[in-house]
Amino acid sequence: MKDFVFCSPTTFIFGRDTEKQVGDYCQKFKKSKVLIHYGGGSVIRSGLLDRIKGSLDRAQVAWVELGGVKPNPRASLVYEGIKLGRTEQVDLILAVGGGSAIDSSKAIAAGIPYIGDFWDFYEGKALVQNPIAVATVLTIPAAGSEGSPGSVITREDGLLKRAVNDESLRPLFSILNPELTYTLPPFQTACGAADIMSHVFERYLTNTTDVEFSDRLCESVLRTMVQDTPRVLAKPDDYGPRSNIMWAGMVAHNDIVGTDREQDWSSHDIEHELSALYDVAHGAGLAVVFPAFMRFTLQHDVMRFAQLAVRVWNCEMDYEHPERTAAEGIARLTAFYHSIGLPTTFEALGARVEDIPVMAQKLNLTNGRKLGSFNPLTTQDVEAIYHLSRANAAN
Amino acid sequence: MKDFVFCSPTTFIFGRDTEKQVGDYCQKFKKSKVLIHYGGGSVIRSGLLDRIKGSLDRAQVAWVELGGVKPNPRASLVYEGIKLGRTEQVDLILAVGGGSAIDSSKAIAAGIPYIGDFWDFYEGKALVQNPIAVATVLTIPAAGSEGSPGSVITREDGLLKRAVNDESLRPLFSILNPELTYTLPPFQTACGAADIMSHVFERYLTNTTDVEFSDRLCESVLRTMVQDTPRVLAKPDDYGPRSNIMWAGMVAHNDIVGTDREQDWSSHDIEHELSALYDVAHGAGLAVVFPAFMRFTLQHDVMRFAQLAVRVWNCEMDYEHPERTAAEGIARLTAFYHSIGLPTTFEALGARVEDIPVMAQKLNLTNGRKLGSFNPLTTQDVEAIYHLSRANAAN
Repeated sequence: MKDFVFCSPTTFIFGRDTEKQVGDYCQKFKKSKVLIHYGGGSVIRSGLLDRIKGSLDRAQVAWVELGGVKPNPRASLVYEGIKLGRTEQVDLILAVGGGSAIDSSKAIAAGIPYIGDFWDFYEGKALVQNPIAVATVLTIPAAGSEGSPGSVITREDGLLKRAVNDESLRPLFSILNPELTYTLPPFQTACGAADIMSHVFERYLTNTTDVEFSDRLCESVLRTMVQDTPRVLAKPDDYGPRSNIMWAGMVAHNDIVGTDREQDWSSHDIEHELSALYDVAHGAGLAVVFPAFMRFTLQHDVMRFAQLAVRVWNCEMDYEHPERTAAEGIARLTAFYHSIGLPTTFEALGARVEDIPVMAQKLNLTNGRKLGSFNPLTTQDVEAIYHLSRANAAN
Repeated sequence: MKDFVFCSPTTFIFGRDTEKQVGDYCQKFKKSKVLIHYGGGSVIRSGLLDRIKGSLDRAQVAWVELGGVKPNPRASLVYEGIKLGRTEQVDLILAVGGGSAIDSSKAIAAGIPYIGDFWDFYEGKALVQNPIAVATVLTIPAAGSEGSPGSVITREDGLLKRAVNDESLRPLFSILNPELTYTLPPFQTACGAADIMSHVFERYLTNTTDVEFSDRLCESVLRTMVQDTPRVLAKPDDYGPRSNIMWAGMVAHNDIVGTDREQDWSSHDIEHELSALYDVAHGAGLAVVFPAFMRFTLQHDVMRFAQLAVRVWNCEMDYEHPERTAAEGIARLTAFYHSIGLPTTFEALGARVEDIPVMAQKLNLTNGRKLGSFNPLTTQDVEAIYHLSRANAAN
């Protein structure tokens, strides 16, 4: 086990109708002026935004609003939010939506008190200091940003996608009402599941030894997703599995399941190139990249993959040929993604073989730099993974 | 799944030599005068106390000290600590030790700013308000108080043992160095394991449905304890399993594994009467009470006990007779406690049959009041459980 410091100070308010408590929690935390930040569409149509405004009004908490967040949230809207937040002197950014609204809110929160360009944080040129508080009303269990210190923003010029991880960006409070996820389209529910499961894989595939306990925590999230995702696809308003998925999605990424280990986020980077080039959903891209990444790295730690296969996918352990068990687990993962309606091949994403060298080059693995830590990857390795993803099992 | 609010704001600093950072963390949290509160013996002999004082001195954090905490921490020492803390105007109580030192520190922290008698909190006559901050350097993984809002104190007159649970009593930071647990006597290591496992059982045995995910989290703690406790008994300085146990002990009780469900703490109460009368170790008492409690309540939810048996104890599911699988799981729990050196029968604790009615009466289940929520117990039920514990399986 690795040494670590862990602190997840967010207050989670979980249950039916909890969005109506948002005003009370603003009061409790002595916030007097809120910037409500959201995308559009369903948040408005469903009446959610009105319920939130009503709750703030009842608690006599002032608010302004900024909609228009898009998937892969853009820097341009962040600049707008920073300007509005400063003019209105808000003391809380309230994200309403999924990871995009939350990540954009975190960027605004970091940018308001900073005299320079907020993009400095995302380029590693400056550290976040004393950000405005962020709170969330979550509508999409996927990104885990409701409990995490992370934020990913895309800058339009050059489609640069960059991440910040700063403990000060963990939300002050997050409101999780599983009923708000009933109306998610099935494809988005499935993409969310792949995102949540990937957050666990990125921690599970580690070279750190003696992590027995957190391995089990990881497996708890995975088994829950495997059991409950098909249930909510079959019955979208089934509160039980919706609630388990929503809570598992937070636990998957606030780092309680992986704080004690080296983590490997190379698959995320490999997927980002796909998202950037073809505008595919992040979860769908992950469903394609992860099985290929696993097949590529299987030999690096056969027994870890065998453990995953047995404990999560109920594979029978082949003690004579553990690599067969390991491979069977990966095949079942692919079959699972396929069964919940996700693409599982490179071509199914609409990606083109001729783009592979370009995507691999963009990861900029020069001067001996490699990607990831589990089984560090060269440009050639990344290309090989893209090629492997053309023929994931079960398709 | 039940609605809930969850917030675990403690900063956990985990790893080798982390006690040497205590001064830095006091500085970081702007604490200038610390009351170090501990038991005695090993904390002094091992040099731990000196290392902590050295770290505080280097960080120019002033300190005073109060030793003498005993197992089942006493109110008299709490009064002494409150007086000292007020005179010295401390702004942090630093517990060094296990649950007793931490619980006593929490009581002092709550008492210092309160004009009345601190015991009011433990009698339910007053609510804790603005306590002094508490931090911990943990040496015994067992009580989970390093991450919990709880504190249990015993008042000498009448041996009243009372608990407070207040969110404001969660520690500000907790330092967890698994190496500090190498010198725990085997019996204390085993008692700690039973305490940690009981914290999970008290959450696992619930009537709340749709708690698939947190069931899995509970099972993660249990499987880790079953795997790693024998390892550390065989090799006390084995860092890997010691670290897994230490972290699992925190997770077992900060409520992340059970915040979404109704919990049942009746076994704790039933055990407390044994501790009070015979001065047995809490963990040892739990090892006797829990299997009996489970046998008594088995018929209330056979499938829940069968799930526990299959997932934690690797029992083969008997689909025709699930109650056999359920019973087999309980038998394996008893065998496990026996194997790690714990008493598993009422008599092995030194308890006397003729005291059973007295102990059951002390729980004061009058006017239709029952104990617990999973399968609410009458005085007669409690007596039956004590009787069942005279012949737990595997003895």
